Amino acid sequence: MRYLGIEEIENIAIGAALLGTGGGGDPYIGKIMAIQAIEEFGPIPLLDITELEDDDIVVPSAMMGAPTVMVEKIPSGEEALASFKALEKVLNKKIKATMPIEAGGVNSLLPLALAARIGLPVVDGDGMGRAFPELQMVTFYLEGVSTTPLVLADEKGNNLVLNTIDGLWAEKIARSATMVMGGSVMNAIYPMTGRQVKQSAIYRTLTLEEKIGRTIREAKSNGLNAIDEVLTLLNGFKLFTGKIVDIDRQTDGGFVKGQAKISGLDSNKGENAYINFQNEHLIAKTDSNILCMTPDLITVLDSETALPITTEGMRYGSRVTLIGIPCDEKWRTPKGIEVAGPRYFGYDYDFIPVEKLNERNDQ
Amino acid sequence: MRYLGIEEIENIAIGAALLGTGGGGDPYIGKIMAIQAIEEFGPIPLLDITELEDDDIVVPSAMMGAPTVMVEKIPSGEEALASFKALEKVLNKKIKATMPIEAGGVNSLLPLALAARIGLPVVDGDGMGRAFPELQMVTFYLEGVSTTPLVLADEKGNNLVLNTIDGLWAEKIARSATMVMGGSVMNAIYPMTGRQVKQSAIYRTLTLEEKIGRTIREAKSNGLNAIDEVLTLLNGFKLFTGKIVDIDRQTDGGFVKGQAKISGLDSNKGENAYINFQNEHLIAKTDSNILCMTPDLITVLDSETALPITTEGMRYGSRVTLIGIPCDEKWRTPKGIEVAGPRYFGYDYDFIPVEKLNERNDQ
Repeated sequence: MRYLGIEEIENIAIGAALLGTGGGGDPYIGKIMAIQAIEEFGPIPLLDITELEDDDIVVPSAMMGAPTVMVEKIPSGEEALASFKALEKVLNKKIKATMPIEAGGVNSLLPLALAARIGLPVVDGDGMGRAFPELQMVTFYLEGVSTTPLVLADEKGNNLVLNTIDGLWAEKIARSATMVMGGSVMNAIYPMTGRQVKQSAIYRTLTLEEKIGRTIREAKSNGLNAIDEVLTLLNGFKLFTGKIVDIDRQTDGGFVKGQAKISGLDSNKGENAYINFQNEHLIAKTDSNILCMTPDLITVLDSETALPITTEGMRYGSRVTLIGIPCDEKWRTPKGIEVAGPRYFGYDYDFIPVEKLNERNDQ
Repeated sequence: MRYLGIEEIENIAIGAALLGTGGGGDPYIGKIMAIQAIEEFGPIPLLDITELEDDDIVVPSAMMGAPTVMVEKIPSGEEALASFKALEKVLNKKIKATMPIEAGGVNSLLPLALAARIGLPVVDGDGMGRAFPELQMVTFYLEGVSTTPLVLADEKGNNLVLNTIDGLWAEKIARSATMVMGGSVMNAIYPMTGRQVKQSAIYRTLTLEEKIGRTIREAKSNGLNAIDEVLTLLNGFKLFTGKIVDIDRQTDGGFVKGQAKISGLDSNKGENAYINFQNEHLIAKTDSNILCMTPDLITVLDSETALPITTEGMRYGSRVTLIGIPCDEKWRTPKGIEVAGPRYFGYDYDFIPVEKLNERNDQ
């Protein structure tokens, strides 16, 4: 066990935005909340997954809703607390630790704020190794952990406890309740034993996020190329370099959907790249080639600062570098591809790993 | 305590359709389910409210959704059972009896089917003395009983437990979940103590429904005018006699909304009457006068058979008699008018009791 203080949070926020692949909500809000909580309640204990007892109860905490709504409706922290209290009552058991459900933006950081507030440790792991837009898109689900009992709580004092036959029904009902409850709520979701966490989680996500943040910050102060350093750390690929020339973004059914067009610069001069997103970036391609596809990670970095840009942060004229990162092996199984591969999102492609796509493009 | 058998159910179904003021779903479905349950499990014990112990737990059972959906998606009985089991777990108490939430159509009869199935008595009362379209439109709510914990269960095996700050939020969230869960669900709602039932319920609704059914059936076999007999029983008013010449009905936001136009016959020849409904009939008027308005009861009877017609049963060409019945005094309080009066439904009228409106029309 080690402790996370304010410097660690600053680095984690950068890593969370990068692994968030454009989605997961603005990490800035989560960072501010986590820092405030640390200032008030002290550093947050971080537990390695291997330190969990098999029968410990671990409950991920996550915000659900459209990122654009989250930016306007900042959570107070009471919602997360209310969701945990309600779930403890349902389970009739004490929750031992919380955990991020995803390695993306606000949802990497909100569990840290909650942990500080209620004096619980955070488990160093998550259920995606990236961000995804739907509740069942987690490795917990791939490994058969039940999505429910799931508690949704809003800032007004309403909560609901869902018990569904599968994760898809949980997603459907929770999504519609979220819309009615004001567009974003806090969830206490996928309650698990320590044993289930060990089997189904992605390990050491917070430590990786912290390393990503530190790598980018240190590269800059050491005069190194921060993008190259990050690609080395993550076994990633530089997909495309250019300038955003068009961005189309709509809130639809609780999601932010759209497409960005990037006009090539440097070695990509004369080409165009396109990114399709639904909260997160799902497909990156040029007019002739596919560059990267979900569940592999597509991230947009500011070419100058090497800092990640969220879908809502993309602006006309920004100079950006697209990078692709191999996802966790759990996502490359047939079930992983079924749950979060290109066809689930309506793209008529067979999944091809980013490393294969980029060998091919290099020929 | 007395027992309800098949003959009583036949009469109750007629009374329920009449007090249902056009809404509450097709009583036929509820009747079939109650009769099947009695055939399988025996007669249903009916408890007078005065027979309840003060600390007995009583939980009304009701279907939520658009009546037109209910007709196509008949409940199996498992949903109601599942909602009760889930609520007992939440309350951590044994439920002693069930009760209808409304005196309208299917929701008067479904609690009888549930009671037979799980061997609980039914309380002779309800929360409306009629039917209304929204969850907070009950005398329980007027008297400060909490709508939640409220359980919604569907036929697939999903359930959700709502805890909201008030009845309006319960209505809003439950309505949207109902739509996603297939358009109709079973609720276990307004859990109450015997003491709360005594304070807030409308007394002897099932007995009244049974009397209405018996009055109509006996009048016919005795050659009496069944409509006149019913009006005497209920202190009601004959509002208008005519033929349905237009009917406009739409499913909108989980409700069936619309208007019917009736061309006058007999003493109303030359006039037109109009009924506005949202699941239930809300306003009856002619070109020059208002005849009756919510929360008073507006019911459409077949002029020939004296049997009540639901909003979904209204057909072009049917000869009908509109009757108006004073609602329970609980609805005529300022809070009752606020919750279920004309302005709540968007009609710019002050509430005037049906007996006043019909004095005036008689001048």
